[in-house]
Amino acid sequence: MAERYPFPDLNTLPEDIRARILEVQEKAGFIPNVFLAFARRPAEWRAFFAYHDALMLKEEGSLTKGEREMIVTTTSAANQCLYCVVAHGAILRIYEKKPLVADQVAVNHRKADIPPRQKAMLDFAMKVCQRAHEIEDADFKALYPHGFDDEDIWDISAITAFFGLSNRMASFAGMQPNPEFYLMGRLPREKKA
Amino acid sequence: MAERYPFPDLNTLPEDIRARILEVQEKAGFIPNVFLAFARRPAEWRAFFAYHDALMLKEEGSLTKGEREMIVTTTSAANQCLYCVVAHGAILRIYEKKPLVADQVAVNHRKADIPPRQKAMLDFAMKVCQRAHEIEDADFKALYPHGFDDEDIWDISAITAFFGLSNRMASFAGMQPNPEFYLMGRLPREKKA
Amino acid sequence: MAERYPFPDLNTLPEDIRARILEVQEKAGFIPNVFLAFARRPAEWRAFFAYHDALMLKEEGSLTKGEREMIVTTTSAANQCLYCVVAHGAILRIYEKKPLVADQVAVNHRKADIPPRQKAMLDFAMKVCQRAHEIEDADFKALYPHGFDDEDIWDISAITAFFGLSNRMASFAGMQPNPEFYLMGRLPREKKA
Amino acid sequence: MAERYPFPDLNTLPEDIRARILEVQEKAGFIPNVFLAFARRPAEWRAFFAYHDALMLKEEGSLTKGEREMIVTTTSAANQCLYCVVAHGAILRIYEKKPLVADQVAVNHRKADIPPRQKAMLDFAMKVCQRAHEIEDADFKALYPHGFDDEDIWDISAITAFFGLSNRMASFAGMQPNPEFYLMGRLPREKKA
Amino acid sequence: MAERYPFPDLNTLPEDIRARILEVQEKAGFIPNVFLAFARRPAEWRAFFAYHDALMLKEEGSLTKGEREMIVTTTSAANQCLYCVVAHGAILRIYEKKPLVADQVAVNHRKADIPPRQKAMLDFAMKVCQRAHEIEDADFKALYPHGFDDEDIWDISAITAFFGLSNRMASFAGMQPNPEFYLMGRLPREKKA
Amino acid sequence: MAERYPFPDLNTLPEDIRARILEVQEKAGFIPNVFLAFARRPAEWRAFFAYHDALMLKEEGSLTKGEREMIVTTTSAANQCLYCVVAHGAILRIYEKKPLVADQVAVNHRKADIPPRQKAMLDFAMKVCQRAHEIEDADFKALYPHGFDDEDIWDISAITAFFGLSNRMASFAGMQPNPEFYLMGRLPREKKA
Repeated sequence: MAERYPFPDLNTLPEDIRARILEVQEKAGFIPNVFLAFARRPAEWRAFFAYHDALMLKEEGSLTKGEREMIVTTTSAANQCLYCVVAHGAILRIYEKKPLVADQVAVNHRKADIPPRQKAMLDFAMKVCQRAHEIEDADFKALYPHGFDDEDIWDISAITAFFGLSNRMASFAGMQPNPEFYLMGRLPREKKA
Repeated sequence: MAERYPFPDLNTLPEDIRARILEVQEKAGFIPNVFLAFARRPAEWRAFFAYHDALMLKEEGSLTKGEREMIVTTTSAANQCLYCVVAHGAILRIYEKKPLVADQVAVNHRKADIPPRQKAMLDFAMKVCQRAHEIEDADFKALYPHGFDDEDIWDISAITAFFGLSNRMASFAGMQPNPEFYLMGRLPREKKA
Repeated sequence: MAERYPFPDLNTLPEDIRARILEVQEKAGFIPNVFLAFARRPAEWRAFFAYHDALMLKEEGSLTKGEREMIVTTTSAANQCLYCVVAHGAILRIYEKKPLVADQVAVNHRKADIPPRQKAMLDFAMKVCQRAHEIEDADFKALYPHGFDDEDIWDISAITAFFGLSNRMASFAGMQPNPEFYLMGRLPREKKA
Repeated sequence: MAERYPFPDLNTLPEDIRARILEVQEKAGFIPNVFLAFARRPAEWRAFFAYHDALMLKEEGSLTKGEREMIVTTTSAANQCLYCVVAHGAILRIYEKKPLVADQVAVNHRKADIPPRQKAMLDFAMKVCQRAHEIEDADFKALYPHGFDDEDIWDISAITAFFGLSNRMASFAGMQPNPEFYLMGRLPREKKA
Repeated sequence: MAERYPFPDLNTLPEDIRARILEVQEKAGFIPNVFLAFARRPAEWRAFFAYHDALMLKEEGSLTKGEREMIVTTTSAANQCLYCVVAHGAILRIYEKKPLVADQVAVNHRKADIPPRQKAMLDFAMKVCQRAHEIEDADFKALYPHGFDDEDIWDISAITAFFGLSNRMASFAGMQPNPEFYLMGRLPREKKA
Repeated sequence: MAERYPFPDLNTLPEDIRARILEVQEKAGFIPNVFLAFARRPAEWRAFFAYHDALMLKEEGSLTKGEREMIVTTTSAANQCLYCVVAHGAILRIYEKKPLVADQVAVNHRKADIPPRQKAMLDFAMKVCQRAHEIEDADFKALYPHGFDDEDIWDISAITAFFGLSNRMASFAGMQPNPEFYLMGRLPREKKA
């Protein structure tokens, strides 16, 4: 990545992009590489993060933020995307306050220590990820008993579809996760203090 | 689609979305269903079309607009997405002024009547579509002799990745192409007059 | 194809083959390439078209001629055979008087605008095409409620199997569909007059 | 098979079919089931065996009869067709006078005790069997150094394609190989006397 | 194999290994190649045969020795392992006293002439062989009505898993089955006398 | 697992097994679940760990202990085995003193921060894992320039094959990794003190 698609200098970036990046840096303590990797193309950067925010930061619907990250981690592992598995696995651990769950869903969500609702959610997400053209009524019906409605199912599908885009970009360009992500959310909180 | 995710009434849409849709309708003579299907979620609509425009309407780089549509048609067929194959196949025929090319690349780009440059471009796009995690240096090097540079290759990859998102959304939601698309670009121009 | 396996001169062909080809030409207005491509081997030509006619022109059974062509178009697309998708898609449009149906089943028969009977028929055909060794009693039983009996199911299977042969020959030899096929059956009848 | 598609009574068959079957019975000592299984549909029977004979009994070309049967056995195993693996494996052992070769190519032709020429031939056949749409110039060029010309390659492809048809029919209908085939060609000749 | 990993001289082997090999030779009339192929690494040889004996020679449980060999033959064919299909197919024929069954399960266990109990057993084994990560409660429940309990299911899984190891070793190293195996168990007993 | 195949009481185990388990517990601070899961079958336990030790603890050859664990982690991820990815990923981090490497090879070894020698080693291991029947001379030759000889390649293959067994057993039985493994080797050494 570094060679073929070098990160732009932060100071050369459009003001809106620079501001958002500095804000993220302030909050996280470092700049996640995806913010710099896409910044070389401002129009794509803006669309990418607008899409991301619409799906991942929304408050409506029954999906928690942790469940959204769980979808990302699981389907990104199926797509073998190193950046997204490591970065979103970290956020998943933090949101769900479960230090083991990200590794579990990344390897095999069927064996993860999660409730049936989340297994059904991930089954649907994996089908959108790998065989969206075979999605049929029965797939929707399998989700309703777990409390998902059609808007939630749109969320599950859109998150999966959006990170399928992200996975392909990260893999093609060789984007590497920041080292900080690997350990985030693995330690009990007191160690952080 | 109609049942589960009905199209919103055009008059209830935010002004920016409504304006763009009316503009498209004026130009095309009809409203492509994707504009209405996504409009039920304005924030996603705006991000989706901003991304689309950044990739498909850009003037820079060596990819022609026809080549961009050729990537969409080929990879959407691999993803078995009815909406994108039919709609973008139509635009491909018009841009390339080749009434047969869309059906050819949709079935098997290897047998299509296109120059080696476009075959190499589609080979790369298909690998991003189906095995992005295996992309390696050799794949880039296969494109350089055909006049593609690293920015062009980013375009090829981003178009493939973005329409992978679009394919999954259209398939999951059962989005149907407008009947008008099926015939567009198939007839010699004088018949249109 | 042209280089490796050139078409024979029509005048050098055995009389029975020449007569049939001229008859087809008279009716269609052109000679579909498959008739010439196979003619270089008269014994194979005769067996191929005898088999074709036995399956596609028969009057018995509940499958309509349009349904037979629908099986060909769908499974040929799964086999990525350009010749058969384009040529038989054309005949399908004409027989079924549905200008959109061929493109629909070629991309994804699950999303095509066809009745449940035809979806079940294509599900069975696709299994014969891709996993015939897994066909079991349950697959037959899924067809009976739609009015197919065991003779119809033999027809579905034999058409799929025969065009699997045809697909492999056309792909291996690089057989191209005649340009005329691409547009056939797409226009309302009055435009033809 | 017996239940769904019972064999017809030999005496009810058209004279040409009956004569050929009796001739085969006289030569082999039993009637191979494929002759009876297809006989319920005389037109298909005639086309099937005409095609078979054109490909398998021809004298021209560099493929020996044993090599033709080797293609059938190998690709039929890839298609998991019990009838063809057992019946044609038997004929292969007899023609090649190699009692072990049929089991070897059926399991994994790459490890079979056969010369490089036959390995190359089977590599090509397997590609026609499984990915005919990806056949390209390089595949032809890999065969020329082994003494195959384009007519031989047509033979390899046509045999593979024809038995792909046969495999699907036998699997779908549950056709069973005659018990006699399993042992044929496995014993040294003196034991037969 | 012979070149890269030559068989060790029997006289140079540790006494326990030599003794077992001589015992097998006395019983079978020849030394199965797997005993020599692994003997070049005594520690691995001992572990391999200890594991083998624990699974294949045990007397407890409802699986017969023939059923154990049937699992080996079926899953080894799925793994395309020449050595195991031929060697264990021979033992299967002898144990089950069914000269045809090994070829049948190797090609397609769904079409083999075996009772429903054994088909269910092989369905489970094939899933462990190819998709163990998807094994779920429903797979266990499908076996109980056929008289298998959880210990039997452990046996089915362990045999499949162990021979998956064996298959990979034999294929990687090019291990060839002894010629004697090909004919064993195919002839009625009186011919052997 | 706990329900279907409960762990035996440590005190009921044969003395040799109990002693080894206590020794491991002393060293690691906990008993890795695989030791208890297999202990319900002493003969299989002994063979399993004898095999494991022969492959993983050996001192000869050019593979380091870290490289051995890297093979296990990579191929276990391909087999989606939760237990082995988490447990052996932990050991890999410790041996290699690289806290990030296990997550990297588990997601996509092609993008891992490892030298070409280890990438070549993992390419070979993945082929043994997924397509051992296609291993050919060229695969061996690709390893020699990296300093691997035929004994090292036997090690790579045997480790892959052995953990393919382990993966299938762990997945089928639902074996869960001990929570301790998830964090092992992720923190700088001083924090451990």
